[in-house]
Amino acid sequence: MTQAVRHDSMRARNLEVVLGEVGRSGPVTRAALAESTGLTKSTVSKLVGDLIDAGILTESGVIRGGERGRPGVEVVLSGHRVAALGLEVNVDYLAVCLLDLAKKERFRVRVDRDNRGTQPSEVLGELRVLALNALSEAEVMGLTVAGAVLAISGPVEDGVLHNAPNLGWRGVRAAEALDLPLRVDMDNEANLAALGELWFGTGEPDFLYVSGEIGIGAGLVVGGSLFRGVHGSAGELGHVVVSPSGPPCRCGGHGCLEGYAGQEALLRAAAPPGSVVSGMSDLLHRLEAGDRHALAACADAGRALGIALTSAVNLLDLDRIVLGGIFAPLFGWIAGPAAEAMESRLGGLRRSVPSLVGSGLGGDAATLGAAGQVVHRVIADPGPYVARARAAAEAARV
Amino acid sequence: MTQAVRHDSMRARNLEVVLGEVGRSGPVTRAALAESTGLTKSTVSKLVGDLIDAGILTESGVIRGGERGRPGVEVVLSGHRVAALGLEVNVDYLAVCLLDLAKKERFRVRVDRDNRGTQPSEVLGELRVLALNALSEAEVMGLTVAGAVLAISGPVEDGVLHNAPNLGWRGVRAAEALDLPLRVDMDNEANLAALGELWFGTGEPDFLYVSGEIGIGAGLVVGGSLFRGVHGSAGELGHVVVSPSGPPCRCGGHGCLEGYAGQEALLRAAAPPGSVVSGMSDLLHRLEAGDRHALAACADAGRALGIALTSAVNLLDLDRIVLGGIFAPLFGWIAGPAAEAMESRLGGLRRSVPSLVGSGLGGDAATLGAAGQVVHRVIADPGPYVARARAAAEAARV
Repeated sequence: MTQAVRHDSMRARNLEVVLGEVGRSGPVTRAALAESTGLTKSTVSKLVGDLIDAGILTESGVIRGGERGRPGVEVVLSGHRVAALGLEVNVDYLAVCLLDLAKKERFRVRVDRDNRGTQPSEVLGELRVLALNALSEAEVMGLTVAGAVLAISGPVEDGVLHNAPNLGWRGVRAAEALDLPLRVDMDNEANLAALGELWFGTGEPDFLYVSGEIGIGAGLVVGGSLFRGVHGSAGELGHVVVSPSGPPCRCGGHGCLEGYAGQEALLRAAAPPGSVVSGMSDLLHRLEAGDRHALAACADAGRALGIALTSAVNLLDLDRIVLGGIFAPLFGWIAGPAAEAMESRLGGLRRSVPSLVGSGLGGDAATLGAAGQVVHRVIADPGPYVARARAAAEAARV
Repeated sequence: MTQAVRHDSMRARNLEVVLGEVGRSGPVTRAALAESTGLTKSTVSKLVGDLIDAGILTESGVIRGGERGRPGVEVVLSGHRVAALGLEVNVDYLAVCLLDLAKKERFRVRVDRDNRGTQPSEVLGELRVLALNALSEAEVMGLTVAGAVLAISGPVEDGVLHNAPNLGWRGVRAAEALDLPLRVDMDNEANLAALGELWFGTGEPDFLYVSGEIGIGAGLVVGGSLFRGVHGSAGELGHVVVSPSGPPCRCGGHGCLEGYAGQEALLRAAAPPGSVVSGMSDLLHRLEAGDRHALAACADAGRALGIALTSAVNLLDLDRIVLGGIFAPLFGWIAGPAAEAMESRLGGLRRSVPSLVGSGLGGDAATLGAAGQVVHRVIADPGPYVARARAAAEAARV
């Protein structure tokens, strides 16, 4: 019995090793896998066969001549069988995306919706419909959805969204409340957007991702891993103090970054006296037209962002800051003043002032990160999928 | 050959496993070690024997009845043979301490010295004399010093102290320049003080250690590990922005925490018009006497510290903040105002506002952390000491 358990756990470990290698290296032959993992060719062939049967790997069709031995067919992560669901409740939209194991996006829906001061049940009910629709789409495409992760704007710990002042939600078990027929985990939107940027963006291993929305969150990636802090709520950049006697914030403090550079504060500041700026596209039109109120508001927001980022750089030791969310389309108007503020405060102490870059993923970063987390979970532990495929094959044979 | 290498590396790993277990669990019998490590009793006995010969373990003399098998003598880390050297260059003192493997302090020297605007060679020459003296003391006590770590006030990367504006040093290879007859590494003072607090203080696994000196650094410990950031210079709390239009700072910025709560700023603010406060003990006397200038200066410094810590808590997700350096003796006068500032800004968003506690280690935290790092290095890799003891035994036999 002990022997059998040992054998099974060794097998599970070897499955992980082989799959992890394919995940890292991309298309690779069985012979190359044997060489890089130190397993025998016959063990690798058996494991790869099981992973192909489970729909996790597939042969790419490319034949590559090995340095040693016969040419072999390359195997890659399969986009045909297993998929992952990314979900997002943001302050002014809901979003769903479906990713296959090859990390290709297969389906995406985004619904604009003002979620401020709403009842969680109402909003989550609507997201549930979108999610079930995505699951149906997956079924049509022949994809089994391995799990879902929900991105939400606020600090999450142990499955509870503690306090999302912009949504007006407190102590909500949002992932559970979705009541979907699969495992759903939940994490902070900025953390997941940072992972989205890591896996689907530039591929740099060290950066702070700044998520500008109504609130402003941030996710810190160091050495390719997310830094979560003690309770997973690190990166609350929106409540870093820009000026202690500044405008009151809905968190209870004064002069938080959100009050200068959050979407609502920015739209308010950009409006000429007696007028309103109706939303982000209105703001962008005004900026492109050279409207002085809009330009001044973005310059002020950029300076405030630069001051908050100065504190972040001093505490977190950063070289690279990726501006996402609304800061991506606004990059041209806020990055300059932000960089100037950082340069004047960090130039003397640090060898180099961190670079500011705009995220190429925009508002999709969090859902991609959410679905990507499920993909990574499958790759890290493929055992259950292999076992399920075997059981199904047994059942078919009987 | 391959076989021999494998055997040696397995042996090295088992040495680490056994020693790591003694390090974690404290006094333990060979039988208990066999149970907890999964190694056979005879393997454990052999490894423990080697570690005793190398002077790393010793028998405690306590006999403990095992739940299974015969009673056994407990083994513990030995304080008799191997020691570690902690060194510190601070802005206004030099310090050296000697720690044995049982983490007992065996020797300490602290010399007050104004190191502002000095030549590195002059200061390091003086520290070298103190270090050589400690090595002689170690020799007298029969201790072999396994290595040294130098704590220094400023950002350190790859053996270089980049810029210590308070010392006036830039680009100094300080550990190398000491030219001591043993391996000397170098790290930031606040990082090492945080490790000192972790290993010799309250034993909590998650906290921010704040080191108040002329400058203000911080070291973040999460899950029992130090968070260093990308280049090891995370935790520059002294240059977190308290008020963007505040007093100019020697870093080039304005309104940094150091300008409100650093030792020099504090002494300046505490002086009545036309008078000076000559140092920390003068300040403490004035505070105890109820001097209103001194009290007001500490209250203002506490509020500024609370604002900077609010930003730190938002970014780093903290529950516990340990105030060290000058903030430890000043705790009674600055912690209240700091806690109030944090409460008013963090109370709305976080489930709980972090606790502030004073460090019990005071100015010794960094040297203890420095020497402790060497102790941890020996415990993590005892192989070389075992090999050396064996070679010596061989040589004696020939």
